[in-house]
Amino acid sequence: MDDLWYSEKHTPTTKLSIKVDRVLHQEQSEYQSIALFESREFGRFLSLDGRLMLTQKDEFIYHEMITHVAMAVNPQIESILVIGAGDGGVARELSKYNHIKQIDLVEIDERVIALSKEYLPFCACGFEHDCVNVIIQDGLKFVRSKHETYDLIIVDSTDPFGPGEVLFTKEFYGACFHALKEKGILINQHENAFYESNIEEMKSAHRNIKKVFPISYVYQAHIPTYPSGHWLFGFASKGLLPIVDMQEEKWEQMQIKTKYYNTQLHKGAFALPNYIKELLDEA
Amino acid sequence: MDDLWYSEKHTPTTKLSIKVDRVLHQEQSEYQSIALFESREFGRFLSLDGRLMLTQKDEFIYHEMITHVAMAVNPQIESILVIGAGDGGVARELSKYNHIKQIDLVEIDERVIALSKEYLPFCACGFEHDCVNVIIQDGLKFVRSKHETYDLIIVDSTDPFGPGEVLFTKEFYGACFHALKEKGILINQHENAFYESNIEEMKSAHRNIKKVFPISYVYQAHIPTYPSGHWLFGFASKGLLPIVDMQEEKWEQMQIKTKYYNTQLHKGAFALPNYIKELLDEA
Repeated sequence: MDDLWYSEKHTPTTKLSIKVDRVLHQEQSEYQSIALFESREFGRFLSLDGRLMLTQKDEFIYHEMITHVAMAVNPQIESILVIGAGDGGVARELSKYNHIKQIDLVEIDERVIALSKEYLPFCACGFEHDCVNVIIQDGLKFVRSKHETYDLIIVDSTDPFGPGEVLFTKEFYGACFHALKEKGILINQHENAFYESNIEEMKSAHRNIKKVFPISYVYQAHIPTYPSGHWLFGFASKGLLPIVDMQEEKWEQMQIKTKYYNTQLHKGAFALPNYIKELLDEA
Repeated sequence: MDDLWYSEKHTPTTKLSIKVDRVLHQEQSEYQSIALFESREFGRFLSLDGRLMLTQKDEFIYHEMITHVAMAVNPQIESILVIGAGDGGVARELSKYNHIKQIDLVEIDERVIALSKEYLPFCACGFEHDCVNVIIQDGLKFVRSKHETYDLIIVDSTDPFGPGEVLFTKEFYGACFHALKEKGILINQHENAFYESNIEEMKSAHRNIKKVFPISYVYQAHIPTYPSGHWLFGFASKGLLPIVDMQEEKWEQMQIKTKYYNTQLHKGAFALPNYIKELLDEA
């Protein structure tokens, strides 16, 4: 067998490499380069513009943590906007809640959805949910057209350059604020705080969210294939607090099956290391 | 400059690579191969038998988390046995507590201590503490000779093969139990639970500790340069519970400076993901 490795530079002098059994697909879409691989350790994995987006082995951590934290704070959430998430993983997690009425999923690149359906069925099964309404459009444009429409917005973006860059701006967060109902929550992927090159992006995202939302917290998860393995998410809201307002019993009663998330871990995820708290204070 | 990379296989098909600016030292000691490098991203780093033990950039996470959790549960701890830890990092963290009377540090390989003093002064400064009594001996042999002597034992071992293997056996944990006083706590590094090759070691360590100690918990930290970045530690004791018995106010009053650890994170560190809880239940 060929000795083929996927290598990704997490910094100019640090890289993670995964042995590839097979290249499933590679193409340049209108927006980005898309590649899909098969590996022994991580199963199938997807990269966009040379950055690993998800692997079959650890995607459950990312997708559970970007979804269930908000759902436990407000289990009455019924209408949701998901931006990005063309692989379907967020929709799959949301499909575990029977009472959800509407999921608008706005992905800029229809090729990500098509290829995920072909190669990543373990995520793309999320598109089978009746409530999922896929819209191929620019996230900012779409969200600007909405007013007090959603209980929850999940921003499952790529990193803050290329097509994902606009999803880290104050303008975008402002549009999200207006698109949310009174008890609305915004969750976004928030980069890492370990490598110098990511710290400024992380601080900038936090600074921009704080300018718009009265409530803004950051929480963490262990995602082994992401740079540093210590990944952050943003929790912003019009009023709900991530721990005090969590409806723990209500969430437990729904008997949602998860492999990473649980309500104890929910609370622990907001207990950040001192060095990250200091970076956020500076933001 | 040479394009020199340190690469470590976290599994047969996964590797982390760090660009090396300079090889500081390499030798084969009586027990293991020891190498020290200088890098831009991680500063200086130490490997033993080709496994990365610590880097200047993230060692604070490991050393704080292996030390302060027990110290916050029982801030009255005065006499401590540290096994391994030849770099001095654990002693450095313990030296932040003025009231500690005795630290016996038992390291099998005196070359690790000598080289740490030469190349890793940011850790080896721990040896300057008056209470530190260095003993060059096999950890199991030493601990067998002690009876109700210590308030705390910290096992800062290498992985469970080579010289560190004995430090994961039921026999060793039994000797630790007898060497601890009535309120004694045992902390050990506990591998990761993400890669198949480490899961059995992790479960075996937990199983062996549970056979000996009435109280046995596992807690976690984000350590970017260790396999998967999701690292576990064991907390075992003769009776003290890691959260219920934590003396939060007392610990805060001591004003110990930390970059990762804090008392909120202490509680969060014990909130494990479901998949790890299941593995521990099976152990």
